[in-house]
Amino acid sequence: MDFYEKTIDSTLIYDGSFISLKVDKVLLPNGNISQRAIVLHSGAAVVVPVDDENNVIFVKQFRKPIEKVIIELPAGKLDKDENPLECAKRELEEETGYKARELIKLTEIYTTPGFSNEVIHVYLATGLYKGEAHTDADEFVEVLKIKMTDAILMVKKGEIRDAKTIIGLLLANMYLQEQGLKK
Amino acid sequence: MDFYEKTIDSTLIYDGSFISLKVDKVLLPNGNISQRAIVLHSGAAVVVPVDDENNVIFVKQFRKPIEKVIIELPAGKLDKDENPLECAKRELEEETGYKARELIKLTEIYTTPGFSNEVIHVYLATGLYKGEAHTDADEFVEVLKIKMTDAILMVKKGEIRDAKTIIGLLLANMYLQEQGLKK
Repeated sequence: MDFYEKTIDSTLIYDGSFISLKVDKVLLPNGNISQRAIVLHSGAAVVVPVDDENNVIFVKQFRKPIEKVIIELPAGKLDKDENPLECAKRELEEETGYKARELIKLTEIYTTPGFSNEVIHVYLATGLYKGEAHTDADEFVEVLKIKMTDAILMVKKGEIRDAKTIIGLLLANMYLQEQGLKK
Repeated sequence: MDFYEKTIDSTLIYDGSFISLKVDKVLLPNGNISQRAIVLHSGAAVVVPVDDENNVIFVKQFRKPIEKVIIELPAGKLDKDENPLECAKRELEEETGYKARELIKLTEIYTTPGFSNEVIHVYLATGLYKGEAHTDADEFVEVLKIKMTDAILMVKKGEIRDAKTIIGLLLANMYLQEQGLKK
């Protein structure tokens, strides 16, 4: 089955520092013409920081698009040409003050392949120790620690709803269980 | 800690049928002014259809933003004023041809709270039977069946990377294991 949609024309609608928007005119497999609005994003890294007592380090922050303060794993956008692993380490320290002796890549996810090219690289961070917290000037976050088992319960109850956070937690938990590292 | 960002001004940049884009000028907790580019989305539903042999029904489709054919769970955007459960039933039948005797809500997720207000309602569908497939005229999907245990392995190996799909699978699997329904 041929699914490919050929781009006939592309118009940049908005060019921002965080996201941009283009609208592509495409040729569908059935010969019809359609439009695809596409949000361009440079990619991001998310970290599941798990300490030696099996606590997970989270951040709470206000998210304007949903007008809510929510619980998320530390994460952030890749700087220009930044390696995802370096981004993960940087965001971990900037947002939580922790550094990690070991970072393991769990997977890469497409957050919204229907309308955006965003890819998030997902890392497990263990062997945590205190670095130096220095958040961005215009970023306001609060750090909190939750037992892995309680965090999983919060996912099931819908108290944790951020997609990258749910994925990071569930995959890290499976990984740690399989490695027999759980205390 | 006060996190709230008050909207001072809002400009609609793009108004599309699938997504829209606005840029809000906001007052930060520290008194600074900043801009937030926000993608407006009406919300969606995703379904984890699991048959009596513990196979999961997926769709493969081309996603223009990432220029790839990927494996996803059946899902779609809420029609205007549509109830998420009705949307889940409709998309399940439209994309896969299946109807379900039982749909259970697993959770709601924010796919990208940093730049979009999209919420996806996640349902487990069991007691599947054949309805009538009728995809949208400009939608091209291929249906496939994968054992739940194999699908989970594909998540771990990075062969399934769509966020809503990973979350649906992992939560459905946990739910079914806890219900002792696994065959």
